Amino acid sequence: MPAKKPLNIGLVGYGFMGRAHSNAFLQAPRFFETDYQPILEAVCARNAERAKSFAQNWGYESVETDWRALVNRADIDVIDIASPNDTHAEIAIAAAQAGKMVLCEKPLGRSASESASMVSAVESNRVANMVWYNYRRVPAVMLVKHLIDEGRFGRIFHYRAKFLQDWTISQDLPQGGEGLWRLDADVAGSGVTGDLLAHCIDTALWLNGPLREVTAMTETFVKERKHNLTGRVEPVRIDDASAALGRFQNSSLATFEATRYARGHKALYTLEINGEHASAMWDLHDLHRIQFFDHRDEGRLRGWRSIHVTDGDHPYMKRWWVPGLQIGYEHTFIHQFADFLTALSEGKEAAPTFRDALATDHVTDAILKSAKTGRWEQVVSVP
Amino acid sequence: MPAKKPLNIGLVGYGFMGRAHSNAFLQAPRFFETDYQPILEAVCARNAERAKSFAQNWGYESVETDWRALVNRADIDVIDIASPNDTHAEIAIAAAQAGKMVLCEKPLGRSASESASMVSAVESNRVANMVWYNYRRVPAVMLVKHLIDEGRFGRIFHYRAKFLQDWTISQDLPQGGEGLWRLDADVAGSGVTGDLLAHCIDTALWLNGPLREVTAMTETFVKERKHNLTGRVEPVRIDDASAALGRFQNSSLATFEATRYARGHKALYTLEINGEHASAMWDLHDLHRIQFFDHRDEGRLRGWRSIHVTDGDHPYMKRWWVPGLQIGYEHTFIHQFADFLTALSEGKEAAPTFRDALATDHVTDAILKSAKTGRWEQVVSVP
Amino acid sequence: MPAKKPLNIGLVGYGFMGRAHSNAFLQAPRFFETDYQPILEAVCARNAERAKSFAQNWGYESVETDWRALVNRADIDVIDIASPNDTHAEIAIAAAQAGKMVLCEKPLGRSASESASMVSAVESNRVANMVWYNYRRVPAVMLVKHLIDEGRFGRIFHYRAKFLQDWTISQDLPQGGEGLWRLDADVAGSGVTGDLLAHCIDTALWLNGPLREVTAMTETFVKERKHNLTGRVEPVRIDDASAALGRFQNSSLATFEATRYARGHKALYTLEINGEHASAMWDLHDLHRIQFFDHRDEGRLRGWRSIHVTDGDHPYMKRWWVPGLQIGYEHTFIHQFADFLTALSEGKEAAPTFRDALATDHVTDAILKSAKTGRWEQVVSVP
Amino acid sequence: MPAKKPLNIGLVGYGFMGRAHSNAFLQAPRFFETDYQPILEAVCARNAERAKSFAQNWGYESVETDWRALVNRADIDVIDIASPNDTHAEIAIAAAQAGKMVLCEKPLGRSASESASMVSAVESNRVANMVWYNYRRVPAVMLVKHLIDEGRFGRIFHYRAKFLQDWTISQDLPQGGEGLWRLDADVAGSGVTGDLLAHCIDTALWLNGPLREVTAMTETFVKERKHNLTGRVEPVRIDDASAALGRFQNSSLATFEATRYARGHKALYTLEINGEHASAMWDLHDLHRIQFFDHRDEGRLRGWRSIHVTDGDHPYMKRWWVPGLQIGYEHTFIHQFADFLTALSEGKEAAPTFRDALATDHVTDAILKSAKTGRWEQVVSVP
Repeated sequence: MPAKKPLNIGLVGYGFMGRAHSNAFLQAPRFFETDYQPILEAVCARNAERAKSFAQNWGYESVETDWRALVNRADIDVIDIASPNDTHAEIAIAAAQAGKMVLCEKPLGRSASESASMVSAVESNRVANMVWYNYRRVPAVMLVKHLIDEGRFGRIFHYRAKFLQDWTISQDLPQGGEGLWRLDADVAGSGVTGDLLAHCIDTALWLNGPLREVTAMTETFVKERKHNLTGRVEPVRIDDASAALGRFQNSSLATFEATRYARGHKALYTLEINGEHASAMWDLHDLHRIQFFDHRDEGRLRGWRSIHVTDGDHPYMKRWWVPGLQIGYEHTFIHQFADFLTALSEGKEAAPTFRDALATDHVTDAILKSAKTGRWEQVVSVP
Repeated sequence: MPAKKPLNIGLVGYGFMGRAHSNAFLQAPRFFETDYQPILEAVCARNAERAKSFAQNWGYESVETDWRALVNRADIDVIDIASPNDTHAEIAIAAAQAGKMVLCEKPLGRSASESASMVSAVESNRVANMVWYNYRRVPAVMLVKHLIDEGRFGRIFHYRAKFLQDWTISQDLPQGGEGLWRLDADVAGSGVTGDLLAHCIDTALWLNGPLREVTAMTETFVKERKHNLTGRVEPVRIDDASAALGRFQNSSLATFEATRYARGHKALYTLEINGEHASAMWDLHDLHRIQFFDHRDEGRLRGWRSIHVTDGDHPYMKRWWVPGLQIGYEHTFIHQFADFLTALSEGKEAAPTFRDALATDHVTDAILKSAKTGRWEQVVSVP
Repeated sequence: MPAKKPLNIGLVGYGFMGRAHSNAFLQAPRFFETDYQPILEAVCARNAERAKSFAQNWGYESVETDWRALVNRADIDVIDIASPNDTHAEIAIAAAQAGKMVLCEKPLGRSASESASMVSAVESNRVANMVWYNYRRVPAVMLVKHLIDEGRFGRIFHYRAKFLQDWTISQDLPQGGEGLWRLDADVAGSGVTGDLLAHCIDTALWLNGPLREVTAMTETFVKERKHNLTGRVEPVRIDDASAALGRFQNSSLATFEATRYARGHKALYTLEINGEHASAMWDLHDLHRIQFFDHRDEGRLRGWRSIHVTDGDHPYMKRWWVPGLQIGYEHTFIHQFADFLTALSEGKEAAPTFRDALATDHVTDAILKSAKTGRWEQVVSVP
Repeated sequence: MPAKKPLNIGLVGYGFMGRAHSNAFLQAPRFFETDYQPILEAVCARNAERAKSFAQNWGYESVETDWRALVNRADIDVIDIASPNDTHAEIAIAAAQAGKMVLCEKPLGRSASESASMVSAVESNRVANMVWYNYRRVPAVMLVKHLIDEGRFGRIFHYRAKFLQDWTISQDLPQGGEGLWRLDADVAGSGVTGDLLAHCIDTALWLNGPLREVTAMTETFVKERKHNLTGRVEPVRIDDASAALGRFQNSSLATFEATRYARGHKALYTLEINGEHASAMWDLHDLHRIQFFDHRDEGRLRGWRSIHVTDGDHPYMKRWWVPGLQIGYEHTFIHQFADFLTALSEGKEAAPTFRDALATDHVTDAILKSAKTGRWEQVVSVP
């Protein structure tokens, strides 16, 4: 084994996503063959004490409390942005201008125009970039991608996806501040459209190509909540639920839905694709399976196959355990980072790039616009 | 057991639905306590030979080849319409005018205006009437209705339903004529919107109240098919797929979808309702179960309960076998007809009446209109 | 359609099974092509009033209160025995001697020796005979049989079946008398071994051939119950639970289990067969499906197929509705009786014959014996 | 955060289990609060080159090729045995005598007598010890344990478990040598009884208490295989399949089965427990769920709850992600090692100890003995 090249990482944010990314940095080189050895060089957060504690736990070698300082450190190769949505653009642009590679949590910006400026920054500065739409790297979802690319579905008729949660039903839940910034429109940009539906759309565009047009509705069920930062009851300005109909460029039909008001569902991201010859379904609550129906099977023995995606010939799985033994949520980040390192070695882009994520933002923008106009809205295409 | 009162039935149509209804007439009084004894008095169809064969098999005592003759027979109490959609209005109106009770297959008419004339006829002639939206009488679906009526869901946030089939994907399938009139727009009125989505909407209105407005899309994937009656390749004018977003009067959100192009699904009617306190799901492919989630269960033991609706305290089930032993599709018609007989004894209406079915037609009309205008359309309300 | 030949049926018993059989007599000729028209000629039960009520409901033309009178009526072609187990042998033997065809509920006798005398009677009098092991006629189970007969499984390694119920857990449940004779050892012969495990074994012998030897355990969890006939608390002498290991003649391994103490299961009859090339599973709670795994499928797309056995090319199903619409428990009796009528037309035996059922009784006898001796017991083979 | 105490680990073996354990050493202190910081001090394997490569990948600071050298190193606190079964006893005894804590893969020894000598060594030398029966630490399984301990099941009637695989069906698979020592009786001790059934039994004893007696059968389907070490076709002396009936000391009934010949199952470890008031089921292929039935639920709403064991109030889960996001197989080792560290801090034993594992070995010994004698065998009890 030749020595690996060090890759120094500076992380911004120490929340849920900071943990998931840090774990990926540590695990990827142990389970995948990589030319690079990620070094946890620095973590940055305004709260110095918490940042130190996080650094100690994960093995970060230093701590910053100002992201500008981090971005300008000469020893950093990669800036990884895991802080709230309203910080993405500023940090990413500064990092790109400083010549750093940039990894960014999704959604890229709070709107397509914000995202466009980020795309411009990374492309004009020619820095490697990637957005953490991690669900592409679920082995079962990647298997669906392979099957589509092999032409097994024939003409596609339908694509449907939904992302259902139930954690904001209580009227007593406040908005804003740590852990609850996703309910604060200024910080998050939008509600479930950018948080949940964006995942559905990223996967859809990747699997089934661009969307041409959408019509949509959104709803805010609880109209006012106490705001944690002001202490006052304030109007809720995010969307609690969002649903859209659409048409893909390949003429197939789309139905999308996301909500935080579906009692009984914690993180039920489901997708289904129906083609001329075959169909497939996937569900985040049983993420290691796909349901697959092949019409070319013998007539009386046709059925939905429950494929336990844990065999050595399934995507990513030969790097893990033995057939039948499953992996979990965090592995999607490990896979994505391992793919990033491979792309780096090969001088290629690692998808989804900022540009790919911009295409998703144009869809969510069109959905939010349609929800206001009540009309079909064209989706701006990304070359 | 006192002698039962005879109830003479005249059936129009000997197809799939003619069989399902005839079976219901015979089975209902054996498994349910009824004051009436249905008599299979006559079956009517243009093809005399087939009508005779059908009569012999099911025990109909006579045969007619002209529905006008049937409608005017003095010995007939009930006209049951199981012929294609384009015959419903004319027969139903004539039957009502002749003072007969009228049972009609769904959808009621080919449009709300056609249905409105039928409602007018049965109401002005004060005859008992019912539409065979049979899925209300699945024990599992009826159980959901009971739970809603008991207030167990609290405020409703979401209602979603779909009806997926795959039987018209082949381009070689012709349109029109026996067995295929559902693809002929003149006969059927519409495609999946009236055939499949109408079931979803009937159940939705019954469970969750009136819809206020909808936006929708429809699609015809295969544009031309040979027409069995003309022998020529002709444009297909029905909708192969239909999807809608909507808002109920109770402010909950609706998503509906129906298609005959979902490979792998034969008759996958699914519905889900998400409320403040509870959620429920049902699926026609496993029609004897509901999935029920109750948020008031102890936290760490919350889960979706798979309730096998076969116990004696479940709707209709004490009349059948023992717990654990399931019933099937045809039983929904038996239940509906048993309920009709009970209502007759009690001098009440049996739901869904023609008026109830008209409400569904106003929704499907609004969906078809929106699919053309690209706008949200208000649903005409039925008092 | 030529006129059908009448077949006059005399039924003994009006309980659960009397209803299931009567329904089969009425429905079989409506849904299947048969040369015979079953006539519900007479029903026999000691309680004249109940018998009359039953006759009126189902259309039996006469009533008897002494089965000997029924057996000797010249107008009866078929005696159908649906009364408790302790009456089977005497009635069946008398019926055979009177030259009647004999249908008998399972288990055939209370022991193999009782059953052997019944086999002898029907065979020496050369009368058609059949035992109502109805689960063979579930379409999904019949499909498994076809797949085995086609050699799709290759060498069989494992066969496992269980039948789990929970209806006798309460200590307050009495034993004996109407509805509870299955807890009375004198009437029932044994407990779950003859009642539930016998179903598992009948199917197993049919699908996988004879069993060579077994070792077993039984248990009576509740040792004493009030006896409904004596009014006294008496020892319970039936087995509440029964489990066995065994070896088939084809060298595959068997595991069997039945109980009435499995909380949460109402009638969970499950079977699974594992072969060199394929495996299949079935479950009475979702009786219209099989799970099928074929190792010859492409490696990374292997999975258990959930086959919804409702298509026209599935056993029995083209006689019912359309693909995707399921049937239920009672249809197994309809299918079995339709097969009986077909066999009668063709001059063949309808399985399972009394002789087939005797083979099952030899297995259950060996299981009950092993539970006492603690040793492996050889299964007496039936030529 | 106070500095953690270092805990120097010496690992023997670099195979599948070596990876799983190493991952646990690294991950446990990141996700759980521990007083100790495991140090990967040395890995030992005969093949120096592979050992070095393994050390480099996982961060072991040194390499040994003789386990005796490792055991005698003063800088080692814990010896972790992840080498084939025939090495367990010798290494564990030497390690205990050298005063090291000992962690050992399961099964403990190749027989109860071998295991007894290991128990004696760790207990007489008073060293901390634990066996890697990792499935106890699946959150869903731990939840079942908690429910049992709370008395929610009432009297237990049934416990059934099976472990089904299909990887040795091909006759062309050789036996012996790297990756295939589990088929070599001298190395493995037994076949599926020690490899798979032992897992079932460890969990069963833990959840439901000691077994009193068993009767069993084993089978070797493929009688001869090429031996990788000798190059010759040799008799296969392990058991390919194993099944047992048993009685627990609490009078409940046991059924156990394990096989490597169940086509379609990769690692299907399932368990079910039926009690007076409640039942639970679990399945390794969907390890993040339990199915739970509570008879005290309202009658018509009773059903098996599918509990997605991913909430913060579920065992171990608050240390991971957010509700709905699942973990996988490897986490069971992380949990077990975290529990070991906690026990160490608290001066307690971490279950299962060597003594606990000896109890399992007495059951597997009784099963293997019964398979030979054809009789019920008493299980030697472990005080």
